[in-house]
Amino acid sequence: MPLPTPADFAPPPDAATRARWLDAERAHRPGRLTRLRASMAAAGVDAYFGAKREHMRWLTGFTLAEGEDKVAGHSGQFLVGGEDVVVVTDSRYTIQVRREAPDTIIEEIGYDLAAAWPQLVGRIGARRVAVEASSVSHALWQRLAEAAPEVELVPAGGWVEAMRAVKTPDEVERIAAACAVADRALATLLPDIRPGVTEHDLAMRLEWLIRTGGAEALAFDVACLAGPEAALPHGAPGDRPVLDGAVLLFDFGAQVEGYRSDMTRTLFVGTPSGRDLRVYDLVLQAQQAAIDELAARVGLGAIPHGRELDALSRGVIDASATWPAYGHGLGHGIGLATHEAPSLSLSAPETPLPSPTVFSVEPGIYLEGETGVRIEDLVHLDAGGGIVELLTLFPREVLVLGA
Amino acid sequence: MPLPTPADFAPPPDAATRARWLDAERAHRPGRLTRLRASMAAAGVDAYFGAKREHMRWLTGFTLAEGEDKVAGHSGQFLVGGEDVVVVTDSRYTIQVRREAPDTIIEEIGYDLAAAWPQLVGRIGARRVAVEASSVSHALWQRLAEAAPEVELVPAGGWVEAMRAVKTPDEVERIAAACAVADRALATLLPDIRPGVTEHDLAMRLEWLIRTGGAEALAFDVACLAGPEAALPHGAPGDRPVLDGAVLLFDFGAQVEGYRSDMTRTLFVGTPSGRDLRVYDLVLQAQQAAIDELAARVGLGAIPHGRELDALSRGVIDASATWPAYGHGLGHGIGLATHEAPSLSLSAPETPLPSPTVFSVEPGIYLEGETGVRIEDLVHLDAGGGIVELLTLFPREVLVLGA
Repeated sequence: MPLPTPADFAPPPDAATRARWLDAERAHRPGRLTRLRASMAAAGVDAYFGAKREHMRWLTGFTLAEGEDKVAGHSGQFLVGGEDVVVVTDSRYTIQVRREAPDTIIEEIGYDLAAAWPQLVGRIGARRVAVEASSVSHALWQRLAEAAPEVELVPAGGWVEAMRAVKTPDEVERIAAACAVADRALATLLPDIRPGVTEHDLAMRLEWLIRTGGAEALAFDVACLAGPEAALPHGAPGDRPVLDGAVLLFDFGAQVEGYRSDMTRTLFVGTPSGRDLRVYDLVLQAQQAAIDELAARVGLGAIPHGRELDALSRGVIDASATWPAYGHGLGHGIGLATHEAPSLSLSAPETPLPSPTVFSVEPGIYLEGETGVRIEDLVHLDAGGGIVELLTLFPREVLVLGA
Repeated sequence: MPLPTPADFAPPPDAATRARWLDAERAHRPGRLTRLRASMAAAGVDAYFGAKREHMRWLTGFTLAEGEDKVAGHSGQFLVGGEDVVVVTDSRYTIQVRREAPDTIIEEIGYDLAAAWPQLVGRIGARRVAVEASSVSHALWQRLAEAAPEVELVPAGGWVEAMRAVKTPDEVERIAAACAVADRALATLLPDIRPGVTEHDLAMRLEWLIRTGGAEALAFDVACLAGPEAALPHGAPGDRPVLDGAVLLFDFGAQVEGYRSDMTRTLFVGTPSGRDLRVYDLVLQAQQAAIDELAARVGLGAIPHGRELDALSRGVIDASATWPAYGHGLGHGIGLATHEAPSLSLSAPETPLPSPTVFSVEPGIYLEGETGVRIEDLVHLDAGGGIVELLTLFPREVLVLGA
């Protein structure tokens, strides 16, 4: 097939579109808080203490960059009460919180959250506080419990995650825009791919294309893995050259107005080996089988479990009895975080996938020391609208480069 | 003064130097484990469970990139027993762990650590396990406690942090190399700085210079803040233009073979205002006062507390009674993490700083809506060798650009 070109994909969003997304975000926040408060009421708690940067952005607007939460101390941790939302911060972030989260109360507590805790929960009159147990450290939990023994801490898990898994149309638009930035970037890179170029140089160039092509950030570090290195599902690019007659795997994503994409393409450089082509074909079949099953079920008015789709895709590879199926899960939800709910894996809950939602479908086959193939796309599922569509539009056919 | 040029700073480390550092890392690991086991014995525990990526790299060699720990599941969490070191992983990382941490036992547990926990602790015969309470979530702690009720979990904090705060010569060399990459990058950027260029474009260019100039990664996202934006101690670059007659603040760092740098320079574009120059001079005095005090005390054979140095530097600004001193701490240790022990702040422990060590000294003055100045350098302290030296060598004199 002819190689894809940048013009095949949507251009980056314009300023008006971005402004519309920001307006939509602001408009969504009160409803999100109302739903969180309904969860609080159902659990009999009068406050919710959160510490995940994605939750904070989604509920309040205050934005920390990836990794920034590690140096932000307690800044950005937040407490939702029946009426108020309090953002905890230190002096480094107060100006920013005032700008980004104007509907919140800023509590500048410095660096000792536990010392400020009694006053913080007292201010909103909380006696039972749901605490994000998977994002709050055991040490902090203990300090909070000791600082205000009369306030009960109730472990909460998955409340905001479950809400965030269901996407609004403008959230899906932003994920699709991130997919288009990534699609265009890879299409632009194709002419540079030839034997001898290093993984590292291609990864840097692809990153540059993403970050100057409409994204404010990468979704995660670009993986570019040549030949046998592609057998490392989470490998990092090195000074290894692209090999003639071997695969070249790219796993990468963009971030547009907070929302992320994630895609993997395994390309062929020089003359592909018959083995590599057969592996590729099997992985593509495994991916398509999951997507077809999802579409068929949605057509029947039902939504499958993530666990079923994983088993189905894995089964296609197992049935060939030639190579081992991927050891990781089939896919993961994506949005403000690269990995979020829902999960498509052997251990995913046996409940229907949420809808509308977006998740990856990414089967792979990894042959250590030999080769690796993974194909990853993002699927937009909207059962009510009968929609099962790919948001990543870069072709999945075999592409041979640098021949 | 004449503008600094790239040639004023050390070139990137060559391959032989990098190989020497990797050899040194391998050679250090047994001693590090011996010291950790001494802490274990002193606390009466027979195992140590860790979850911080920096600790894992330092003790085992297995390397996760910044942010990768968020999608790595339990991969990279580790258990140190009396004899063995076990790295917990899932199939995505097993090949990498075998390469990078060949002296460890790989326990491929998939995604359910709690289910594997009884076997894991049983394997090394542990009955009392020290657990990193500040990096293990409350939810995981509870699941581990329930999975093996007969195994006591003992909260541990700061054990590896304290060991890592004391740097070996090859660790200091790598931090210095990261400083030189950053120094060179900023020197290279200077001719591009002029009114009208955007913060975002300068930040992208500086990042590119760092990442093609010898660093494998940024230490953190580049901050480039023009004029009043410099009053945000943790602001992010935007589409705002560089202003004529105002300050331009860069806060940035490089990572070389795992070790990081961190520096801030506040430059002047066009004709500086008298106010901005006076603010700058006061911040520089506050910084130099702390460094001078440290050198004087080390000359007397003593090492001050981080809290004293913070108070001293802050006192210089307070004594002027003109502008408020920084609300953040004076500085932080740096190494595999951007922020690590020791702390130089109002709440730092009143014990002498560790030695040899490296930390930042970064006072600032922030005038919301008007201007901001911070000057940040890394100081290498080696009390035994009588050394108090800057590792960041970019000049701190007033630099006026684009006039």
